[in-house]
Amino acid sequence: MTSQDELLAAIAWAAQQGWTPATGGNFSARAPQGYLVTASGRDKTRIQAGDLLLCDLEGHVLEGSGKPSAESDLHAALYRLDPTIGCVLHTHTVASTVLSRRFPDGIALNGFEMQKALQGNSTHDATICLPVVPNSQDMSELADHVRAGWPMPWGFLVAGHGIYAVGETIAACRRHLEAIEFLLACVLEESRWSK
Amino acid sequence: MTSQDELLAAIAWAAQQGWTPATGGNFSARAPQGYLVTASGRDKTRIQAGDLLLCDLEGHVLEGSGKPSAESDLHAALYRLDPTIGCVLHTHTVASTVLSRRFPDGIALNGFEMQKALQGNSTHDATICLPVVPNSQDMSELADHVRAGWPMPWGFLVAGHGIYAVGETIAACRRHLEAIEFLLACVLEESRWSK
Amino acid sequence: MTSQDELLAAIAWAAQQGWTPATGGNFSARAPQGYLVTASGRDKTRIQAGDLLLCDLEGHVLEGSGKPSAESDLHAALYRLDPTIGCVLHTHTVASTVLSRRFPDGIALNGFEMQKALQGNSTHDATICLPVVPNSQDMSELADHVRAGWPMPWGFLVAGHGIYAVGETIAACRRHLEAIEFLLACVLEESRWSK
Amino acid sequence: MTSQDELLAAIAWAAQQGWTPATGGNFSARAPQGYLVTASGRDKTRIQAGDLLLCDLEGHVLEGSGKPSAESDLHAALYRLDPTIGCVLHTHTVASTVLSRRFPDGIALNGFEMQKALQGNSTHDATICLPVVPNSQDMSELADHVRAGWPMPWGFLVAGHGIYAVGETIAACRRHLEAIEFLLACVLEESRWSK
Repeated sequence: MTSQDELLAAIAWAAQQGWTPATGGNFSARAPQGYLVTASGRDKTRIQAGDLLLCDLEGHVLEGSGKPSAESDLHAALYRLDPTIGCVLHTHTVASTVLSRRFPDGIALNGFEMQKALQGNSTHDATICLPVVPNSQDMSELADHVRAGWPMPWGFLVAGHGIYAVGETIAACRRHLEAIEFLLACVLEESRWSK
Repeated sequence: MTSQDELLAAIAWAAQQGWTPATGGNFSARAPQGYLVTASGRDKTRIQAGDLLLCDLEGHVLEGSGKPSAESDLHAALYRLDPTIGCVLHTHTVASTVLSRRFPDGIALNGFEMQKALQGNSTHDATICLPVVPNSQDMSELADHVRAGWPMPWGFLVAGHGIYAVGETIAACRRHLEAIEFLLACVLEESRWSK
Repeated sequence: MTSQDELLAAIAWAAQQGWTPATGGNFSARAPQGYLVTASGRDKTRIQAGDLLLCDLEGHVLEGSGKPSAESDLHAALYRLDPTIGCVLHTHTVASTVLSRRFPDGIALNGFEMQKALQGNSTHDATICLPVVPNSQDMSELADHVRAGWPMPWGFLVAGHGIYAVGETIAACRRHLEAIEFLLACVLEESRWSK
Repeated sequence: MTSQDELLAAIAWAAQQGWTPATGGNFSARAPQGYLVTASGRDKTRIQAGDLLLCDLEGHVLEGSGKPSAESDLHAALYRLDPTIGCVLHTHTVASTVLSRRFPDGIALNGFEMQKALQGNSTHDATICLPVVPNSQDMSELADHVRAGWPMPWGFLVAGHGIYAVGETIAACRRHLEAIEFLLACVLEESRWSK
């Protein structure tokens, strides 16, 4: 499978989970010339090769028709920031939206087997943190927030906004995204008890 | 895609989300002679062109077999009230039913990125309100409630009943409906904490 | 569509909703000689004509291979009890299980538009009750509970067990079942606030 | 259907329920030479015969390409421990993760009709317990926990980790798994009330 096909499969999968409501979400994978990224406003449940743009690492479109979304610049900033990042998957989900509002300093996790799906973890018996950065409509400000928190090897939540999962490969990034959603669902359930 | 095909696709999508239980919901799009609307009591998961009626702006059937639902008159009232409305999508969902009962004066929103999917909003950093109107079995009374609250550019909730999303195009109306459902899901989660 | 095909479609639909876990649930429709009912222990997600038995109104099998479930006798009792019943759809759902345990004297409803999907109701502005009967492994005792509560024109919940929806036609019974599930989902949400 | 085909169908079904996030979960069935088990790290939503390994009862691979997951050793320990076990299905679900953390001594059940889907139960009117064992990254330690709690005829939960369902046949094991998930969903709903 080519990198483009693997990215399209990841987008279709995320859309099927209901994680891209109202044409939301942005998805990209590193390419030799920069990165492939979804064009703005496309319905992710019916994504096709023609919905992808090829951009250089400054976020300028090299190939493809359509406009990159404003958030494409944050993808570019991530690829410039960390050469090990091969993929960025950004979704809008209910759990990430509300938990990032409730826990603006990050979400602590301990004792979940699923922590092992996040790169660098080999046990449930440790405390780790899902980072949360403040939201901004100014992409350079948002990128500053991200740089300030780096390294964040699985990605981060943007408060009231969603998840940015990162990974060295598309497969690792999908695994991170799915594990983060699962862990957030657990935290959301437990938050109903813990008042 | 013709306007009729686009409306049928929107209905099938809403039905697949589970937003039209027990043959509930009504869906329409403006047409040169008035508007196209779903006939009463049809199963929205198997909607076809023959399930649509063409009505004039007074709600009289011009073409098609079947009875318009009582709520077709509210669709007609909306198209008469505001010439910019091109589509009305009405669903029955759990979140809209219970939150409109709990917050009969409207649902305030602040800090959600998803607010940007509602026409006229370009930031999360603002307070906006999803309007709620009282329910009534008398369509002219319900239309009076709506006129009293106008303008409501993304639509409104009817208390204990559901969502009426509006938009200038079918695509904009779908985006409004999906964004409203997402925002209500967030509010519902947060309502479990905030007692 | 024949009555048998319509019953099979109703079963497949209920199974797809996730309302028949662990081979649970029983489904029947009145026939000239008695009633058609699902054989015991069949996977409802893959139901076929060969999974149906024809029984007389005493619950004896007239045609078909397989054993009727113990609960087939309750279906028989319902068809004997009320000649207007044309269909009985019994599901196992989480909302009906837990709410029938919490409200063993019945579940009061007021102000829900969805009440209109239940036969005999033309407004949201009334108080109605979803009846709950105690559970029993003795079908004649369970039938006694049901007779004691009759008439229950949309069916009833069995405590800790599930929903028995009834209707004059298969279509009416499906509508009742779907409306009851929707209303229970609303009550379940509101129960999280009302402590 | 061969045992291998029946196992593959069970895995595809579990994956479709969303119970195998982030390539999680392990699934096996006893075979004449030992047991068939999923290879490590495969996407369970696209499982094929080539994703299964044949192991002996010590967990050594006899046939197939790929590595068994670490947890394959726990499957082996279960087949050695109890000759009546014909199938082991292990899933990662939100309800089992959070309830096993909240109730580390086991989850008591009483009054649920669904208890009858668990082997050896013929009534709702009894108190039974879903066992919970502590999690460990050391499979021999985890196996010790399991042996200490045996017999557990429907399986057990691992704290913060998931469900291990067992059964004499693949069909019985699927029924146990589905019934346990349903019962946990009920307990989770009721836990929101019972503070």
